[in-house]
Amino acid sequence: MGQIEDRITAMGLALPPPVVVPPDVQLPFSFVNVCGNRAIVSGHGPQGPDGTVTGPFGIVGHDVSVDQGYDSARLVALSMLGSLHRELGTLDRISHWVKALGMVRCGSDFTQQPAVINGFSDLILELFGPDVGRHSRSAVGMTSLPFGIPVEIEAEVLLHS
Amino acid sequence: MGQIEDRITAMGLALPPPVVVPPDVQLPFSFVNVCGNRAIVSGHGPQGPDGTVTGPFGIVGHDVSVDQGYDSARLVALSMLGSLHRELGTLDRISHWVKALGMVRCGSDFTQQPAVINGFSDLILELFGPDVGRHSRSAVGMTSLPFGIPVEIEAEVLLHS
Amino acid sequence: MGQIEDRITAMGLALPPPVVVPPDVQLPFSFVNVCGNRAIVSGHGPQGPDGTVTGPFGIVGHDVSVDQGYDSARLVALSMLGSLHRELGTLDRISHWVKALGMVRCGSDFTQQPAVINGFSDLILELFGPDVGRHSRSAVGMTSLPFGIPVEIEAEVLLHS
Repeated sequence: MGQIEDRITAMGLALPPPVVVPPDVQLPFSFVNVCGNRAIVSGHGPQGPDGTVTGPFGIVGHDVSVDQGYDSARLVALSMLGSLHRELGTLDRISHWVKALGMVRCGSDFTQQPAVINGFSDLILELFGPDVGRHSRSAVGMTSLPFGIPVEIEAEVLLHS
Repeated sequence: MGQIEDRITAMGLALPPPVVVPPDVQLPFSFVNVCGNRAIVSGHGPQGPDGTVTGPFGIVGHDVSVDQGYDSARLVALSMLGSLHRELGTLDRISHWVKALGMVRCGSDFTQQPAVINGFSDLILELFGPDVGRHSRSAVGMTSLPFGIPVEIEAEVLLHS
Repeated sequence: MGQIEDRITAMGLALPPPVVVPPDVQLPFSFVNVCGNRAIVSGHGPQGPDGTVTGPFGIVGHDVSVDQGYDSARLVALSMLGSLHRELGTLDRISHWVKALGMVRCGSDFTQQPAVINGFSDLILELFGPDVGRHSRSAVGMTSLPFGIPVEIEAEVLLHS
């Protein structure tokens, strides 16, 4: 296990298994696509410990509170780290976080997307530190997201050569 | 003509000509921007054989069915391949698909964005195969898109040096 | 000062200072993240001369006209150039614009996202010229954006080595 994996365990957290989607859903793409020293991470949602897509489902600001959205964004980070761990063998291969596009399912009057996506950014920075974990980011409001999830995030990282 | 172009013809498909937009619309950007061995592909919509932006227009899940959205996403792939062909000379220069951001115009309760964007991913994988065609992806719900199109997708590919 | 900075001054424009956000807002990410010869630019909104996030706030097509949205997108470009100037020392280090994702807060029937984001593209092309300023772009409709801003744009540029 790598140092980042140890840190995850020490924080009492765990990487979820591969996502389990409903049987009629086809996802013909790669959760992580390694291109040279870049790893492009597909849009991930929050996963439960059994791998299923997990709630609370709904619209942030209506059905889902900002604090719950923050927790969902933290679960998205763990889901993404699970995919990266499976693809890379160890998260220690990540040399730098590049960017994240944080998408929040919300209504037309919602303005706290940054507070929601901070659940992702805070965990990445805590695990990787301010140098490796430093990333660009957008946090924006979507009409809706797959499976009714409240948060979806896509990202890019660089790898040690 | 390249091998990918031959495959498109053999499938009974055709690359559309450059997009024809209404006369009062200005699009001061590049449909494909080549930066070293990367080609960045702007957001594309579905085109008809005459180059115009084509329907069905409307909101997927209301005016446009998921199956129709799938077909639109397939047309978006062809539109993008047309732009790449014009910029690169031949699609055989593409060494790897990197990523796609699939945006579906839909309502707040729509959750089948992946089934719509599969129209894009399935065609890319069929044409380029599982190695070159492998890509990361997000599929998300937008309030609205230019011209009333139901699907817009942006992408990145790598080029043979 | 660099040539681009001189051009900005000659046009009667000015780069805004670092963004001033409300005291309860945490933004734990980098406005510009330099990765080798790439600079990844976080989602930026329109800023006033004092650095605060500036209006007109609201929904483009309802509260905010397309022309006002165009002006906001132009302010977003200046905000982004301010961040790039602070990170890079001089904007002359930019060798190429790569891409922009232009996000417009709007209703479900709005279709003029390109006309809004042209406020960004036109200024970038005017300042950097058609070669360096050439960029890929998407212009799409969002349910809502942070702080009620009408336009948010993220981007990537390449740097001279």
